[in-house]
This record gives sequence, C-alpha cells and structure tokens, in this order.
Amino acid sequence: MELYKNERIDRLYSNEVQIIQSAEVFSFSLDAVLLAYFTGILRKKNGLLVDLCAGNGAVGLFLTKKISGQIIEIEIQERLADMAQRSIVLNNLESRVKMLNIDLNKATNYIKKDSVDIVTCNPPYFSDLPTSKKNDNEYLAIARHEISVNLERIIEVTSDLLKMNGKAYFVHRPERAAEIFELMRNHRLAPKKVQLVHPKKEKEANMILIEAIKDGRPNGVRFLPAIVVYEKENEYTPLLKEILYGNKE
Amino acid sequence: MELYKNERIDRLYSNEVQIIQSAEVFSFSLDAVLLAYFTGILRKKNGLLVDLCAGNGAVGLFLTKKISGQIIEIEIQERLADMAQRSIVLNNLESRVKMLNIDLNKATNYIKKDSVDIVTCNPPYFSDLPTSKKNDNEYLAIARHEISVNLERIIEVTSDLLKMNGKAYFVHRPERAAEIFELMRNHRLAPKKVQLVHPKKEKEANMILIEAIKDGRPNGVRFLPAIVVYEKENEYTPLLKEILYGNKE
Repeated sequence: MELYKNERIDRLYSNEVQIIQSAEVFSFSLDAVLLAYFTGILRKKNGLLVDLCAGNGAVGLFLTKKISGQIIEIEIQERLADMAQRSIVLNNLESRVKMLNIDLNKATNYIKKDSVDIVTCNPPYFSDLPTSKKNDNEYLAIARHEISVNLERIIEVTSDLLKMNGKAYFVHRPERAAEIFELMRNHRLAPKKVQLVHPKKEKEANMILIEAIKDGRPNGVRFLPAIVVYEKENEYTPLLKEILYGNKE
Repeated sequence: MELYKNERIDRLYSNEVQIIQSAEVFSFSLDAVLLAYFTGILRKKNGLLVDLCAGNGAVGLFLTKKISGQIIEIEIQERLADMAQRSIVLNNLESRVKMLNIDLNKATNYIKKDSVDIVTCNPPYFSDLPTSKKNDNEYLAIARHEISVNLERIIEVTSDLLKMNGKAYFVHRPERAAEIFELMRNHRLAPKKVQLVHPKKEKEANMILIEAIKDGRPNGVRFLPAIVVYEKENEYTPLLKEILYGNKE
C-alpha cells in the first residue's frame, strides 16, 4: 500500500482494522472509536450503513467488525476520501465498504431515499460563526467547523436516507445537545438513547453519543451509564481498555 | 407541633431541617433532596426563591440552609400545604418561608412577574394520558401525574416569574429530557447545566437535574459529573452520604 508523505498506518488493537492516518491531514480520534463502539452495541446486525462526514473512514472501517452488511462512506474532501479508499484496500474490504467522495448534500443522488438501515456521523463540531477561530489547515478546518455543511443539513440528509425505524448514531459536543434534540425532532428523528463521555468521573462530559430512530415515538430518551475515559491515575478505565485493546480485565 | 394520624417528623441529617411527612399523603424523596443539593451548589446566594409544586415543602425548607433570601412555596393541595406550613413553624422559619396554597396558574396574581431570582420545581413526572395508570390515592395521583397542571404550563409560569438572568432548577425523569429542553427554549429559558442521576454507575439514569437561565444564550448545555447513588454493595456513595448525612468521608 502506497503511503504519502507524513502518513502512517494506525491500528485499533481491539479489532485489527488498519487505518491510514496523517496528523497534517486527518487522524481519527477517540470520538470515532466511541461512535463505532456505541453504534456497535446498539446496532441492527444487517442492512445498509452510511457513514456521513467519514473523514479517513475510521468509523465505517471499525464497524466492519460489528455488522455484516454493506457500508458506504461519504466524505467531501478528496484527500481524506483517498486515504479512506486506500485503507479499504489495505484491509481487503473492497467488497463490503465503498467510499463516495461527494458532498453529502448530493447523497440522495447516489443512495435511494428511505433505504438505509443505519446512518453514523461524527460531524464538524463547531458552528462556522465569523468569530470562531478556525484552523489554518484547511483539511482540519473543514473537518472541525461547519464550513461545507451545517448540523441541520446533516440531520436532514440523515433523515432522508433512513428507512422508517432506521437508526442514526451521532457523536457531538454536549454543549449542543439541546440543539441536536430539537433539530432531530424537526426532521422525524426521535432521540432514544444517549451516552455521555466524561474524561474523568469527576469532570464534566466532553462528548455525547446519541441514538435516534426515524419516525420513532418522541419523549423516550434513555441515558445509558456514563462512559468514563480515564481513572484517577491517567490510566484508561477497564471499559476503555476493552474498547481500545480488546482485552477484558 | 400537632401531628395528624400517620404523620411523622423526618429529618435530613446533613442540615437539621425537620419535615412533617406522611406515607399516605406525601413524603419527600431523594428527588427533592437532590434538587435542593443541585440548586444549592449552583445558586445565587441572595434574592427571592419560589418553589413550585412544593408538596410538603421539603425543597424550600432544605434550601433555607443554602440561601439567605426569602422563599415562597406554592402547592395546590390543601392537605400538603398544611403539612408544609406546620413544618415551617416547627423549624421557626416563619420569617423566611411562606407557603401559598394556590393553583400555580395564579402565581403571578401573588408574585410580581419578572421579580424572582430562583424557581425550583419537582413537578409531577407523568403525563396524564388516559392510558397511564394512576394512583388511587388522590394526593399521590396529583403529585405524580399532570392532572392539575402540565409541564408546559409549569415552565411558562417559571419563565413569567423569573427576572432576566434568573435561574430555574428542575428535577424530572430522563425520558422527558428532549421535551423539557424544547419547552424551556420555547419559553425563554436556556438550559445551561444538566446533572444525571444513576442508581448505580452501571445503570441507566433515572433522574435528571436541569438548570436553565431566563433569556440566556441557547446552546450551552454542560453535563456535570454524573451523580451515582449506590455503590455496588447497595451502600450509598460518599457523595450521597455527604448530601444525606453531612459527613465528608
């Protein structure tokens, strides 16, 4: 597999998938790992999964070990989509995973409306307000700020793609929870399960994982046990070790 | 102090307040204790506090130890308001705490609009749907089901009472979180801080505490560290022991 300048191959030891990364362009982070974990424990096992804002494809690649159906990744940035495509080949997953290097606004030109079982998304976290400090690196800026797409549009596309009772899995920042719930409800998605991620048990949450169901009954949010990342000693908690390294203690 | 049949006096050991209770009529529960705790740690220290759906007055009475201002309790049920009134006298708090035995729909006939610093509320948790199984005991039914008032109306009254930047503190069931966020935003209340309560750390949350600010900027929800009630051995966690008994371990 050809690697470009400053690229490296990382591996999630718990499932052996190899991912081409680049600190200068895009690297998956704990957010992607936990989104795949959250989707993996709650998933339907079959059917079509679409990963929006796929970046270097980490979420979809991790999920090949958890679900048995087809996976389509959608990423607007050519450089990132190219990394994802090479990771697909590196892992011999060409028959199950497809990368579409398109604007997600055009997703329904490629994938039939109301046909998808699961949509996952690790979207840009920050509103593209004029005052927000953007990254000079354009790759990272687009991945982190709502420059090429905003949250409402992502949620609308998610709803368009999903079949009735299809499930959406999002990871985002807790600050935007109320907004996400409202946008979901405005677009036929009922938030059903939430899991908060705290860096330590005595710290505020810095990540929120949300499961929503298309055309599901509203008002049934369940808050799963909080995920705590580090023990006091800056060592991963047993759950995190299991997610990252696969070893149950 | 006169006690009626089947009444007893309970005490929260961490703050020495005595509360008249009756299992047949109304007893405060952990919800009230945790609402007072949550309000107490986040509060402004002065100003006017109004407790809606006050029941036997526990939340307001607990908070006399945390804030220095005036407290008005509002409770529609005469029997409960009477218990609260006797607890006020029992604790010699007549000069600081007032019980209004009124329908909260009439709150602004008694308390000026836009004049209150803090509103607390432990409302009925269950929608009064025709299918929901109600308690045969009318006291408990009214306290638990949205019979005499519904959540939207409570939130509207809360917003009417609060001054600009005044704070609301609610305890409710996590299932209704998305609905609460939306109703708050529709009534000029911005949810700002949330704390989930899990019976054990590996269990789903069964309580949600929400702080909202009137006319605050939306989209800034922070999720505080989760409160866990019991350790594995069905013993209270150190935090709960501190809240209930006042002893720091």
